[in-house]
Amino acid sequence: MKIKIFTTGGTIDKIYFDQKSTYQVGDPQAKGVLERANVVLEYEVESLLKKDSLDFTAEDRELINSRVEASSFDRVVITHGTDTMAATAKALTNQTDKTIVMTGSMYPAQYRDSDAVFNIGCAVTAAQILPPGVYIVMNGRIFDPHHVVKNVAMNRFEQV
Amino acid sequence: MKIKIFTTGGTIDKIYFDQKSTYQVGDPQAKGVLERANVVLEYEVESLLKKDSLDFTAEDRELINSRVEASSFDRVVITHGTDTMAATAKALTNQTDKTIVMTGSMYPAQYRDSDAVFNIGCAVTAAQILPPGVYIVMNGRIFDPHHVVKNVAMNRFEQV
Amino acid sequence: MKIKIFTTGGTIDKIYFDQKSTYQVGDPQAKGVLERANVVLEYEVESLLKKDSLDFTAEDRELINSRVEASSFDRVVITHGTDTMAATAKALTNQTDKTIVMTGSMYPAQYRDSDAVFNIGCAVTAAQILPPGVYIVMNGRIFDPHHVVKNVAMNRFEQV
Amino acid sequence: MKIKIFTTGGTIDKIYFDQKSTYQVGDPQAKGVLERANVVLEYEVESLLKKDSLDFTAEDRELINSRVEASSFDRVVITHGTDTMAATAKALTNQTDKTIVMTGSMYPAQYRDSDAVFNIGCAVTAAQILPPGVYIVMNGRIFDPHHVVKNVAMNRFEQV
Repeated sequence: MKIKIFTTGGTIDKIYFDQKSTYQVGDPQAKGVLERANVVLEYEVESLLKKDSLDFTAEDRELINSRVEASSFDRVVITHGTDTMAATAKALTNQTDKTIVMTGSMYPAQYRDSDAVFNIGCAVTAAQILPPGVYIVMNGRIFDPHHVVKNVAMNRFEQV
Repeated sequence: MKIKIFTTGGTIDKIYFDQKSTYQVGDPQAKGVLERANVVLEYEVESLLKKDSLDFTAEDRELINSRVEASSFDRVVITHGTDTMAATAKALTNQTDKTIVMTGSMYPAQYRDSDAVFNIGCAVTAAQILPPGVYIVMNGRIFDPHHVVKNVAMNRFEQV
Repeated sequence: MKIKIFTTGGTIDKIYFDQKSTYQVGDPQAKGVLERANVVLEYEVESLLKKDSLDFTAEDRELINSRVEASSFDRVVITHGTDTMAATAKALTNQTDKTIVMTGSMYPAQYRDSDAVFNIGCAVTAAQILPPGVYIVMNGRIFDPHHVVKNVAMNRFEQV
Repeated sequence: MKIKIFTTGGTIDKIYFDQKSTYQVGDPQAKGVLERANVVLEYEVESLLKKDSLDFTAEDRELINSRVEASSFDRVVITHGTDTMAATAKALTNQTDKTIVMTGSMYPAQYRDSDAVFNIGCAVTAAQILPPGVYIVMNGRIFDPHHVVKNVAMNRFEQV
């Protein structure tokens, strides 16, 4: 079984740039997470975007959609900013022949006690088991993109 | 959906005791991992044993078996030492009405870059999706207990 | 021997606020660092400011100066943003009866592999040994505030 | 100013070997700690031994003594197991022309929240400032080897 991982930026990939006194999206973190976890799946990591998802345009979402569609992999994980993850997920539901699992994190992967590692583990596992469709995996649960909302105050995703 | 997590010791729960100049199994790590990941599932963590799995006796495995069987939860995760995880898993296959997922880690959860957090994420996710049966989740993959072996030299589980 | 630690904000105290998609100065990190290192000195930690040092006003620097002067402690550590640490240090050189050691970090204390813990160790040690005067301790070295500059591109302090 | 760092093993250098289900002394950790802290001193790290200090023989201590004496560096840091650090330190007090600072840690450098990084920062700083002599730097304090004891129950060094 092989999995394709597309990275698009978001909090999960934010690293600290002292020169700018701020965090900005840097190189994808997913590859390092999978290597340190000694994952024995066949997988490929490809960076599509390096943006905060609040800054995604219609073109960005179309890029993600077309690259997923064109992929020869049946099982796809997408790491994405949490703010507009549901929007991108809903736009992907036109694709019915792949298992597409989206995840991200509330804290950068480079942050102590980040949820990034846990979430990537969840997503990679869900991608191997779930039937074709689009899913969001956050906070240890699997959500339908049409029935999920990010509860910003509580720092978690919830079913609606 | 609710998940029961039974902990039994193993490397995942080893902490360093300077007074003894060694690592020994301490309190269960799974609870802290799930809290830091802000998991929104309903779950319960219960410690059954605090032993290296190389030291498990027939009574220990029988304890695990009977406690899993007696549990009212349909979905169970068991954290366990990796050395004899397959043995305990095979003994559990008499139970056909629960989804039972076993995991552990090659490095203690308290160790930098441990695989513990990733593996617990995988197991908790698998437990929510897989149909009744017994599974081992390690190195990002799902294994049938009757067709898996731990490759000690390569530090990973492999299908056989 | 007793040491007073004044915290003023800066990168060392930045924590990630997902709701604002950014890092902001939070509660002082120094206390937790000293506790986890099991430091057996007598010490007190007091927060004076929680600002990026680029945003310090003349009033802020005067606050730091007067609180240090009024302190009954002979040995003082100040955690501070790195961008204007030298400016605050130079303003403190009017005080000749205390050992005043300033430090900070290029990466937040909450960041994996941050230099914060190392630097606080250096500063707390220097404060116990150095004679009265004002010093900057960064990158494992002790600097005279009048002969140091922050090399932003190389992420380090240098003697000039 | 240049510093020589001799490593001798001890808890600070223990890494987890899953194949042996235990921690054993591995490669020196000090170099990585200094690199991640972006230390701008000139320094050299050299491994003399990789043993638990409880297993040191008279020959081991003589090796340490002669290598320190033969070194062209005036300022030396030695990372060492905490159990017999005072013994090695006392044996070094015959050398009166160098600043020799010993440190170690109660938890392996590879362990989350280890005191290793803090202690190495303290030692490297003390080595730059203290006059010739032999010192133990642990728990954020500087000790005279003839007036220090390791309080095992409290996990710290204390002056006596």
